[in-house]
Amino acid sequence: MKATTIYAPRDVRLEDQPDPTIRKPTDAIVKVVAAGICGSDLWYYRGDTPIRDPFRIGHEFVGIVEEVGSDVRSLHLGDFVIAPFMYSDNTCPHCRVGIQSACSVGGIWGRPDRDGLLTDSGQGEYVRVPLADGTLVATRETPDAAMVPSLLALSDVMGTGWHAATAAGVQDGDTVVVVGDGAVGLSAVLAASRMGAERVVAMSRHEARQQIAREFGATDVIAERGEAGEAAVLQLTDGVGADAVLECVGTGQAMTSAIAVARPGGTVGFVGIPHGVELPVRTMFSRNVGVAGGIAPARQYLPALRDDVLSCAINPGLVFDLDLPLDQVTEGYAAMDERRAIKTMLRP
Amino acid sequence: MKATTIYAPRDVRLEDQPDPTIRKPTDAIVKVVAAGICGSDLWYYRGDTPIRDPFRIGHEFVGIVEEVGSDVRSLHLGDFVIAPFMYSDNTCPHCRVGIQSACSVGGIWGRPDRDGLLTDSGQGEYVRVPLADGTLVATRETPDAAMVPSLLALSDVMGTGWHAATAAGVQDGDTVVVVGDGAVGLSAVLAASRMGAERVVAMSRHEARQQIAREFGATDVIAERGEAGEAAVLQLTDGVGADAVLECVGTGQAMTSAIAVARPGGTVGFVGIPHGVELPVRTMFSRNVGVAGGIAPARQYLPALRDDVLSCAINPGLVFDLDLPLDQVTEGYAAMDERRAIKTMLRP
Repeated sequence: MKATTIYAPRDVRLEDQPDPTIRKPTDAIVKVVAAGICGSDLWYYRGDTPIRDPFRIGHEFVGIVEEVGSDVRSLHLGDFVIAPFMYSDNTCPHCRVGIQSACSVGGIWGRPDRDGLLTDSGQGEYVRVPLADGTLVATRETPDAAMVPSLLALSDVMGTGWHAATAAGVQDGDTVVVVGDGAVGLSAVLAASRMGAERVVAMSRHEARQQIAREFGATDVIAERGEAGEAAVLQLTDGVGADAVLECVGTGQAMTSAIAVARPGGTVGFVGIPHGVELPVRTMFSRNVGVAGGIAPARQYLPALRDDVLSCAINPGLVFDLDLPLDQVTEGYAAMDERRAIKTMLRP
Repeated sequence: MKATTIYAPRDVRLEDQPDPTIRKPTDAIVKVVAAGICGSDLWYYRGDTPIRDPFRIGHEFVGIVEEVGSDVRSLHLGDFVIAPFMYSDNTCPHCRVGIQSACSVGGIWGRPDRDGLLTDSGQGEYVRVPLADGTLVATRETPDAAMVPSLLALSDVMGTGWHAATAAGVQDGDTVVVVGDGAVGLSAVLAASRMGAERVVAMSRHEARQQIAREFGATDVIAERGEAGEAAVLQLTDGVGADAVLECVGTGQAMTSAIAVARPGGTVGFVGIPHGVELPVRTMFSRNVGVAGGIAPARQYLPALRDDVLSCAINPGLVFDLDLPLDQVTEGYAAMDERRAIKTMLRP
C-alpha cells in the first residue's frame, strides 16, 4: 500500500509499504476513505518538534472495515468507521469516566504499541487499528460522500474543540470567547454554539476564517490580538468578561489573553498544546479563574457528534478547504504550511 | 470600644478605639458575639507578610445588629448575623453569578473602602459593616450558644473549604483527597462529605486533626507527605487517583502533590493562597487535570450552610479548639502560632 512517512522538516514522502495484517485478535484493518492533515503534524513539518527517526504520520482518518480479528465484536466488514486520534480500549478506569486519551493500554497512531508492534497512520491506504472495538465508531449506514468531511473532522479537530467547551463548562446562555482561529478554534466556536452559548466571540484576523466562524455560530468577531483584543472583549461584555474562554492555540500570549478575558468564576478550557505557557496562579486565585483541559478524549464525544453530523445539526467539515488525492500529500502539507489552506483532506 | 490592632510581627494589641457609627445609609453596626483568628492573620503575626502600617485585624465574626442605616432593608435591630470575610453588595454582575469575593464595590475588613472610610475588623467589640444588606446573613432566631462556633466557622473556613469542593466539582460518589489539615482543610473534608463523596482521604499527620477529620467524614487518613503521600493515595485508589483534590495549603509542595494524585479528568480545587506555587501546565495538559478555585465567595454559600448548621447537618465549629475572652487575644494568636491550637475563637 501507499502510506506517508515524514523524514525531516518539509520532507514528507508517500511510499510503498507492506499492507497491514491482523496482528492481534482485537485488531481491525481499515481501508482509508479520507484522512486529515493536522496542525500538530505541521510541527514536525516545520521543524518545531524534532524528528528523531522517520515515522508514519497522520492520525485523522475515516474508512471502511476490511477485516477484523477474532475478538472483535462490535464491528463488521464493510462498516464505515471514524477513528479518534488515539486508540483506546474504552473499558479501563480512565476510559470509563470518558478520558480515553489517558487509556491505560491505548496509544497514538504510527508509534509502537505496548507490545512493540508499530501501528499505521491515517495518511495511507490502510490502517491496522488496535483495540478496534474500543477505538472505532461506526455509522449505521455508509454515509453520503458529502458527509465525509464532517465525519473526518470528528477524528480530531471537532472533538478537540468540543473538549475545550466541555472543559470550560459551557452552558446554555453563556458568553464564550474562542482564542485561535485554526481548525480547532473554529470547531470550538461550533461546539460552544451547539451547546447553547448565547454569545460566541471569535478572535480572528483572517477573513476566510472569520466567515467560517460566523457560519459556525460566532456572534462577534474580534480581529485585534493581545491587549487590544482583551480590551475589545471586555468592552463587548460591559467590563465583566466571558463565562468561558476556549484557548485553542497553546502559546503564552494566547493563554494570557484567555485568562484576562475570563470573568471571575469563569473557566479557560485549553486544548492548544502548551508551548511556552506559564499559568499565572496568583491571578487565577485572586480572580477565581480556573484552567482545565488537555488532550481531548475525542472517542468520548464521537457517538453524539456522529449523530449530530448525520442529522445535519453540525457541519464541522467546513474547516477542510483543500481536498486532494493522497498522492498530492506533499502539496497538502505545503498549502497548510504556507497558510494557503486551513486544513487539508486527503483521499487515497 | 476595644478592638485589636497588629503593629508588628508578634505585636498584637487590644486597644480602646472610638465606637463605630453609621457613615453611609447602607451601613449597619454589629455588636460582635464571637470572632475568629484566621490562619491568614498569622502571616502578619509571623512576619511572613510585611506590615506596612499598623492595622485593625480580624475578618471572621458573628454578632447582633445594633443599628442600621436608612437604606438597609433586610436587617433589623437584634438580628443575629454572620459576616463573610469580605463585604459585597450582592447585586453587581460578579455577585449575581456567586463570586461575591470579586464584588465590584466590595472589600475586606479593616481597610479603607472605596470612599476611603476605614472599616472595622472582627476582633473587637463593634463593627461598622458597609453594604449591610448584601453582606450580612441573618438567622431567623437568635441561635443557641452552642451553635455559635459553627456559625462563626461559616464566616471563612467552612465557606472556603466548601469553595474548594465546589471548584473541584465534587459529586455524589466521588473519591476526594484533601491536602492540608488546618481549619480550612478540615472544613473541606466536611464539605466533600456533605456533598456526598464516597471516599474522603484526609492528608494529616497530627492526631488531633486526624480525629476531627474523621468526625467530619474522612474515610481514610494518610500521614505521609510529598511523594510518599502521593504513592499512598495512588495505592488507595488502585493507581487511578482521585476525582477531586482539594488543595488547602498554598505551597508548591501541596499543589504538586494535589495535581499528582488527581485522576485524568479530575480537578484540583485550590483555596490555599499560593506562595511559591508554579502550575505544571504540560502535566495538567497531558493528564487532563484542571485547577480551579481562589478567594472563596463565602457569601454565596452562607444561606445554605447556615441552614445546614441550624439543622445540625454539619458542625464545622469543631475546628475551634480554643475559646478565649477577647482580652486574651494575644494568647489566642500565640496558641495558634505555636500550634497549641488549631483555631481560636474570641468572645468580647
